[in-house]
Amino acid sequence: MILDIRFDFDRQSRLGLIEAIWGEHKSVEQLKKVTNEVLKKDEFVFITRINEIKAKCLQEIYSNAIFIRDANCLVIGENRNKVQTEKTVAIVSGGSSDLKVSLEVKTSLEIYGISCETFIDVGVAGVHRLLSQLDKINKHDVIVVCAGMEGALATVIGGLLPQPIIGVPVSVGYGVSKDGKVALNSMLASCSPGIVVMNIDNGYGAAMAALRIINLK
Amino acid sequence: MILDIRFDFDRQSRLGLIEAIWGEHKSVEQLKKVTNEVLKKDEFVFITRINEIKAKCLQEIYSNAIFIRDANCLVIGENRNKVQTEKTVAIVSGGSSDLKVSLEVKTSLEIYGISCETFIDVGVAGVHRLLSQLDKINKHDVIVVCAGMEGALATVIGGLLPQPIIGVPVSVGYGVSKDGKVALNSMLASCSPGIVVMNIDNGYGAAMAALRIINLK
Amino acid sequence: MILDIRFDFDRQSRLGLIEAIWGEHKSVEQLKKVTNEVLKKDEFVFITRINEIKAKCLQEIYSNAIFIRDANCLVIGENRNKVQTEKTVAIVSGGSSDLKVSLEVKTSLEIYGISCETFIDVGVAGVHRLLSQLDKINKHDVIVVCAGMEGALATVIGGLLPQPIIGVPVSVGYGVSKDGKVALNSMLASCSPGIVVMNIDNGYGAAMAALRIINLK
Amino acid sequence: MILDIRFDFDRQSRLGLIEAIWGEHKSVEQLKKVTNEVLKKDEFVFITRINEIKAKCLQEIYSNAIFIRDANCLVIGENRNKVQTEKTVAIVSGGSSDLKVSLEVKTSLEIYGISCETFIDVGVAGVHRLLSQLDKINKHDVIVVCAGMEGALATVIGGLLPQPIIGVPVSVGYGVSKDGKVALNSMLASCSPGIVVMNIDNGYGAAMAALRIINLK
Amino acid sequence: MILDIRFDFDRQSRLGLIEAIWGEHKSVEQLKKVTNEVLKKDEFVFITRINEIKAKCLQEIYSNAIFIRDANCLVIGENRNKVQTEKTVAIVSGGSSDLKVSLEVKTSLEIYGISCETFIDVGVAGVHRLLSQLDKINKHDVIVVCAGMEGALATVIGGLLPQPIIGVPVSVGYGVSKDGKVALNSMLASCSPGIVVMNIDNGYGAAMAALRIINLK
Amino acid sequence: MILDIRFDFDRQSRLGLIEAIWGEHKSVEQLKKVTNEVLKKDEFVFITRINEIKAKCLQEIYSNAIFIRDANCLVIGENRNKVQTEKTVAIVSGGSSDLKVSLEVKTSLEIYGISCETFIDVGVAGVHRLLSQLDKINKHDVIVVCAGMEGALATVIGGLLPQPIIGVPVSVGYGVSKDGKVALNSMLASCSPGIVVMNIDNGYGAAMAALRIINLK
Amino acid sequence: MILDIRFDFDRQSRLGLIEAIWGEHKSVEQLKKVTNEVLKKDEFVFITRINEIKAKCLQEIYSNAIFIRDANCLVIGENRNKVQTEKTVAIVSGGSSDLKVSLEVKTSLEIYGISCETFIDVGVAGVHRLLSQLDKINKHDVIVVCAGMEGALATVIGGLLPQPIIGVPVSVGYGVSKDGKVALNSMLASCSPGIVVMNIDNGYGAAMAALRIINLK
Amino acid sequence: MILDIRFDFDRQSRLGLIEAIWGEHKSVEQLKKVTNEVLKKDEFVFITRINEIKAKCLQEIYSNAIFIRDANCLVIGENRNKVQTEKTVAIVSGGSSDLKVSLEVKTSLEIYGISCETFIDVGVAGVHRLLSQLDKINKHDVIVVCAGMEGALATVIGGLLPQPIIGVPVSVGYGVSKDGKVALNSMLASCSPGIVVMNIDNGYGAAMAALRIINLK
Repeated sequence: MILDIRFDFDRQSRLGLIEAIWGEHKSVEQLKKVTNEVLKKDEFVFITRINEIKAKCLQEIYSNAIFIRDANCLVIGENRNKVQTEKTVAIVSGGSSDLKVSLEVKTSLEIYGISCETFIDVGVAGVHRLLSQLDKINKHDVIVVCAGMEGALATVIGGLLPQPIIGVPVSVGYGVSKDGKVALNSMLASCSPGIVVMNIDNGYGAAMAALRIINLK
Repeated sequence: MILDIRFDFDRQSRLGLIEAIWGEHKSVEQLKKVTNEVLKKDEFVFITRINEIKAKCLQEIYSNAIFIRDANCLVIGENRNKVQTEKTVAIVSGGSSDLKVSLEVKTSLEIYGISCETFIDVGVAGVHRLLSQLDKINKHDVIVVCAGMEGALATVIGGLLPQPIIGVPVSVGYGVSKDGKVALNSMLASCSPGIVVMNIDNGYGAAMAALRIINLK
Repeated sequence: MILDIRFDFDRQSRLGLIEAIWGEHKSVEQLKKVTNEVLKKDEFVFITRINEIKAKCLQEIYSNAIFIRDANCLVIGENRNKVQTEKTVAIVSGGSSDLKVSLEVKTSLEIYGISCETFIDVGVAGVHRLLSQLDKINKHDVIVVCAGMEGALATVIGGLLPQPIIGVPVSVGYGVSKDGKVALNSMLASCSPGIVVMNIDNGYGAAMAALRIINLK
Repeated sequence: MILDIRFDFDRQSRLGLIEAIWGEHKSVEQLKKVTNEVLKKDEFVFITRINEIKAKCLQEIYSNAIFIRDANCLVIGENRNKVQTEKTVAIVSGGSSDLKVSLEVKTSLEIYGISCETFIDVGVAGVHRLLSQLDKINKHDVIVVCAGMEGALATVIGGLLPQPIIGVPVSVGYGVSKDGKVALNSMLASCSPGIVVMNIDNGYGAAMAALRIINLK
Repeated sequence: MILDIRFDFDRQSRLGLIEAIWGEHKSVEQLKKVTNEVLKKDEFVFITRINEIKAKCLQEIYSNAIFIRDANCLVIGENRNKVQTEKTVAIVSGGSSDLKVSLEVKTSLEIYGISCETFIDVGVAGVHRLLSQLDKINKHDVIVVCAGMEGALATVIGGLLPQPIIGVPVSVGYGVSKDGKVALNSMLASCSPGIVVMNIDNGYGAAMAALRIINLK
Repeated sequence: MILDIRFDFDRQSRLGLIEAIWGEHKSVEQLKKVTNEVLKKDEFVFITRINEIKAKCLQEIYSNAIFIRDANCLVIGENRNKVQTEKTVAIVSGGSSDLKVSLEVKTSLEIYGISCETFIDVGVAGVHRLLSQLDKINKHDVIVVCAGMEGALATVIGGLLPQPIIGVPVSVGYGVSKDGKVALNSMLASCSPGIVVMNIDNGYGAAMAALRIINLK
Repeated sequence: MILDIRFDFDRQSRLGLIEAIWGEHKSVEQLKKVTNEVLKKDEFVFITRINEIKAKCLQEIYSNAIFIRDANCLVIGENRNKVQTEKTVAIVSGGSSDLKVSLEVKTSLEIYGISCETFIDVGVAGVHRLLSQLDKINKHDVIVVCAGMEGALATVIGGLLPQPIIGVPVSVGYGVSKDGKVALNSMLASCSPGIVVMNIDNGYGAAMAALRIINLK
Repeated sequence: MILDIRFDFDRQSRLGLIEAIWGEHKSVEQLKKVTNEVLKKDEFVFITRINEIKAKCLQEIYSNAIFIRDANCLVIGENRNKVQTEKTVAIVSGGSSDLKVSLEVKTSLEIYGISCETFIDVGVAGVHRLLSQLDKINKHDVIVVCAGMEGALATVIGGLLPQPIIGVPVSVGYGVSKDGKVALNSMLASCSPGIVVMNIDNGYGAAMAALRIINLK
C-alpha cells in the first residue's frame, strides 16, 4: 500500500521555520519513510518526542543521527537556516520533574543557533529561590516558563519582569493536577498581564514562538 | 401543607458551633419559619448568603435584625457561645473583587468573638505588595487566603509562613476561570506543603475551620 | 467598613505597563474608589469590561471620562507612558460577532500609541476571504487573531505568516462551542508551530503580550 | 455457560449493510464463536479494530482469513452484496498519524466495491498543500476528512467544496487534544455549513454513512 | 468607528449554498448593516436564530421581511437559487419540545424548494408510536432526527431504515441532559451504523448537510 | 402551521402509568394544545415542572385545574387508574432546600393513591437527627432519598435499612456542588449496596420507579 | 504493622445482605487477611472483581474456593442466607461485550438462590431482535439492563414493560463512549419513566437492588 | 548536561517543615542526585511516593536507607527537627483499600515525632462501625479522614466531633468514582461545617497541615 507523504519543504521560506517531525504517534517505519524523504532533498532532520527505542532503530540506519536523550529529540545533519541574532532565551522551571519539557525547548532553539540558559527548581513554594535568580533571568530577551502542579511560577515572573513570557504547562502532578490541565488553566487565568500560553508539554511550540519573536525585525 | 423542620440545636454542645442558616436557596417564607423556630428557643440567628431583598423582608418582621451588606449576612440577637481566646486570624485576598467572600469569613468569626485583620489587594501579580505586608500577616495565628483567577496567592504565602493556611477559592474570573474551578484546583495542587482548601466561595466554612483550629486545647 | 486598596503604581516602572482596572466584577462604588485613588496620584485611568450603565455612572462624576462603547472600555486622562515605536499590530477576526474582543485589543494598544489595523470577517469558511487580505496583514509586526466557533483561523494564518501570532478565543458560539472552550482548545492544539494563546475573551491580555513583544530591544 | 448470540443477518435486507464485527472489546474466544455463526450461514465475515495478535489466532483457524494490518481489519470470504455504482469517495487526512483511521474507511468501502482515493498529509498548517490537491479531491462524490489535533481541515474543505463532507476526528494528539475531543468539537462547531461528524476514530461509521449517501436512488 | 464586513457572496457558486446570517450574537445594528449590504447586491436575506424583538426591529425597516416565529428565522426577498429535485426530507423528532429546531431544519430546506414532512412526538419511550409512522418516513430520501434527552431515537431509526440519517441533538432536558450533551454523545456513540451528527441545536447545519446530499449528481 | 401531537394514551395499559406532561420546556400554547387533546379523550391531566405563571394561564381556561405550588405540579380531573395497595413510601430529605423535589415525588405518588410520609431536614451533618427518625422510616416499604450537596444521606440510610432505596440528587448547592452533579455521583458511588439513582431533580421519575416496585405482584 | 479489619458481620441481619469483598483494589495479602477473618466466623466468602491471577493465589490456599471466570467472582463455602422466593430476574444486554457485567449480576443473585435468565445481544440497532424476545423477558419480575455505547436499550425496554427496570451502564465503547459515561447519562436522562440506574459496571449493585425489591414483603 | 538543583534547605527555619522529595515523577538518577545533595549537607532524607523498584536501587547505594513499603516512603538518617508536643492525630479510613494513603499520613507525621492512631474500615455503609469507635477517635487532637468512593465518612465525623478535620480523598473506585474526583467533591461540598480538604491521595500534605495546626503556639 503506497501512500504519499507531502513534507512541507516550503515552510522555511514562508515562516523561517523548518518542519519538525513529531515522533510520538509515528511507527519506526513511518519515521524512516519521512526521514528518507527529507534526506533525499538534502535537508536537516529534526524529530521531537521520540523515545529511546525508536531512536536506536533510526541510529542503526543513519549513522550520523544524534539522540538527545534528556529532551527526547533526534537530529540528523546540520540546520543551514540558523538565525543571526544576539537575543537569548531564559528557560525557567519549577522542579526537576519538568526537565524533559525544558530541554525540548532548549534543543529546539539551539538548532537555530539561539543561546539559552536554564533555571531549574526555582518554584514558588520558596519564592526566595526565584528572587535570588531574578537578575540573571532578566538578562535574557524572552522567558519560557515550564511548570506543572499549579503553575503559579508564570504569574510571579510575569509580575516582576517586562519580557515576553511564554508559559508551558507540564503534565506532572497527581489528583486534580494529573494531566497538566491545572497548570494550563492557571497560566491562562494568570492575573499578571500579557502572559501567553502553549499546549501542555509543548516545549517545541514554545521554542517556535520564541523564534517568531526573535525574528521580529 | 405542614412540614417539620429539625433545627440542629445540639450542634453547639457537640461541635462548639451554632447552626448557621444558609439563605441562598431558601425563600423568605422558609427563612421566616426557621428564624421563628430558633428565636422561640431564645437562640442566636445567623443567616449567610442572604441578598438585600430577602434581608429587608426579614428586617421588617424582626426589628433587631442587622444586615451586614458587604458580607451578605444577617444576624438577630447575640451569640452567647463566644470563644475565650487571644488567637487571631488574618484574611488575605488577591483583589477587591474577592471582598464579599473575605467579609463572610470575617463576620462568621467575629460573631464568635475572634479578632480578624483583612489584607486586601495583595495579589501575586506584584509580589512586592504581598512581601511588604508579610510581617503584619505573620502576627496572626491562622491565615485564610481568598483568591479567584489562578489562586497562586495561597501557594506563595504557604511557602513563606508556618501557620495553618486555609484556601478559599473565589468564583471571580472569566473564560477558564469563570466559576472558581481554576482557583480551587490550583490551591489543591499547590506545591507549598500543608495548604488546606474549602469549596468555592465557602467563606463561612473557612471561618468554622479556623474556629476548630483555635478551639484546639 | 474601611478597606485599603493597594493599587500597583510601580507596575509601569517594572513592566512598562500601567495597571488597568477590570470593571466586570466591581460595583460602581468600588470603581469610584479605585478611580479616585488613581486620579489622586495624577495617573491615567483605564477600565476594561465595563458596561454602559456603570460607565454612565462614572461619566457623571468624572466629566472627562470617555466611554468606548464597542470595546467596553473607559479612559480618564492621558497615558503619559506611550511607546516610541514604528511597529504595528494586525487584529484579525473571523466574524462580526468577535468584534467586542477585537476592539478591546485595539483600544488597549492605542492608549500606548501603537497603530493597529483590524481585519474583520476573514473566517476560514471561505478561505479566499483570508487569502485576499494576506499581503495587507503581512505588513504588520505582530498578529492577534480573535476567533470563536472552532478557532481554525489562527492555524491557517500561523501556517502562512512568520510573525508572532497571538490567539484570543472568543466566547461566541452555541452547543459544544458555547463558552469559547472549543476555540481555546483548537488554538492550543494547533498544528501550526509557535502560536501562543490567551484566556477566552482576554483581548486586554493579548494587547499586553503584543506590547511586551514590541518593547523588546 | 452457554450464551446465545443473535447476529443481525437481516441487516443487509433492511439497511443494505452487513453487520460488521467490532473486534476491540471481544476476546479471541468470542470472536471465534461469532465467526463460526456467520460462516455457518455462509455469510461474509468482516471484523474491524482487531489487533495483530487476535488476527493471527483467527488466521490459524480460518486459512482464508485476510488481515489488513494498516487498517486493523480482518475479512473472511467475499461480500456478495456489493454496490453497483460509479460514485467514488475521497479520503483526506491531515497527517500520516491519522493513517489507521483513514484506511479503516477505505477498507470498509472497498468491500462494497466503492472506489476510494486517499489524500494524506494535506493539513492546514500549510494550506497550499491542500489547495494543490483540490481539483483532484473535487472529482469525487463524497469526501471523508480524518483529522486529529485541532481538526481545522474539515472546515477549510467544507468552505471550498460542495460535496457531502463527513468528518472523522482522530485520537491523535497530546495535552488538550490527547483523546480526539478537540478535533471532535472543532468539527461539530465548524463555521463551514453542513459538515457532518462521526464519533472519534469511527472510520467504519464514516464508510457506512458514505454508503447510505451513495445508495440514495 | 467604521468596520468592513466581507459577506461571502461567492458561496452560492462554490458550494451551491447562500450565506445565512446568524442572528443570535448580533445586535440589531449589526443585523441592519449586514442586511443592507446583502440587499444592495440584490440578494436574498436569510437570518437564523433571531428572536422576536430583533425581528420586529428589522420588520419596521424592511416592510417585506417575513418572520417565521416558530423557527426563529427571518427572510427578505426570494431565494433565486432553488434546487431542481424531487428528493424530499423527513424531519423526525422525539417531543414537542424539540419543535424549534425541527422547524429551523424545515424552513432552511424550504427556501431552497425542498419538500419536507415533519413527524413530531415519535419518541422511543413508546416505540410503537415510531413503528406506526415508519412507512411514511421511509418514503423520504434523507432523514433528519431531532432529539433531546438521551437521543435514542436516532439509533432506533438508524437500525430500521437505509437512508442517510442526520442526527441533531437538542438542548432540551435537565440534570445530566441539561444542555444537549447527552443527546449529542448518544448519537455519536450510536450502535446503528452510519449515523452522522451535527452540533447541538444546529438545525440549519442539518438542512445544509441534507442539501449537499440532495445536490449529489 | 399545524403539527400533530401523538400523546401516548396506551401507556397506562402497557406500563400501568399514565403519561405525565413535562411543563418546563413547553410554552403555554403547547401546554393548552396537549391538555385539550387529553381532555378530549376524557383522560386525567398531570403536568409537572410548571411554574406559577404558566399554571395561572391554564387555570383561567380550565376552571377545575388545581395547581400544587410547592411541587410545581398541575392536575385536571381525577386519575381513574389508582393502585390498590397498602404499601407506602417514605420520602427523606437532607434539608428544607430539597423541598420542591420531595413534594414532586409525593404528589406524583398520591395521584395513584399511594400514601407517603415526608421526613425533612434529617441530613447527616447531625446523624442523630436521622437515627431518631429511623424506626418511623423503617415502617415504609420503599424509601426515596432526596439530597443535594454531597448526597451522603442515601449512603447512611442504605447501610441501615433493607428496603429498596431510590436516590434523587437535588440541584441545590454552590461551587463544586452547584448543579447537583456531586450529589448524583456520590449516590452512584455509594458504598452501601443496592442503592439506585435517578437523574438530578427527577422526583417524578423516582415516584414512577417506586410505583413499578409497588406494582410487583 | 498490625491493622484491624472491621468486617460488617451484622449486615445480613440489618439488610438481608452479606458483605461482599471487592477484589479489584485489594492485594492478595489483603484478600487473604479478610478471607481468613470471614472463614473464622464460619461465614460465606464472596469476592467480586477479582482477576484470574489473584483468584489462583487464593485457590491455592483455600481448596474449596470456586472461581467463576466469566464473572470475575470467587466464592468459598455456601451462603446460608438464601431467599425463599419464586420471583425471577431477566438480565438483558446489548452486545456480547457487555457479558462480564451481565454475569456479575447473575452470579450475585444466584448465590441468594434467585433464578435469572440472560438475554444477550438484543441491542436496539435492530429493534426486532429485542421485540422477538419481549414475551420471554416479560415473564420475569425484575429486569436488569446492561448496556454500553449509547445505552438506548434501557429506554426502549422501559417504554414497553411495566416491571422495575435497573440500568447498568457498561464501560464498553471508544471515543465519546469510552468509559461508559455516555451509557450512564443516557440511562439517567431516559425519556421512559421510572428507570433506575447504577454506577458504571456495577453489576453487583444491580443484583443487590433487585434483591431489595424481591425481599419486599 | 549539568543542571543545578536548588534544594530548599531554609524551609525548616521558615516553615518548621523539611523539604520532602516527591519520588513519583523522578528517575532513579534524579533521586540519587538530589539525595546526594541533601546528605552532603548532613540533612535528613525523606522520599514519598517511591515504588519498590526505585527504592531498592537507592538502598543498594545508601545502606542505611529504610523503605516503608506500605506507605511507599523511604527515609535516610534521622530528622533532627522533631516537634515537642503531646498532641496526637487520629487517621480514620473507610476501607482497607485506602491503606496506602493512610500510612503515608502516619509515616509523614511520625518522622516529626507525632503519635498517630489509625482507624481502618470504619466506613459509613455501616455507620455503627464508626459510632463504636467514636470515643477513641475523640481522644485525639486532629483528625485526618482518608476515603475513596463517595467520601461520606468525612461528613459524618465532621457532624459528630469538634476537632479540626482534614479530608483526604483517595483514588479508589470505579465508574464515576474512578479517580477520586467524587470523594474530593463530596468532601468539598460537605454539609458538615469547617471540614478542610487536600488534593486526591495527598497524604503527605494532610500530615503537613496537621503539623501546622499542632505547631500553633
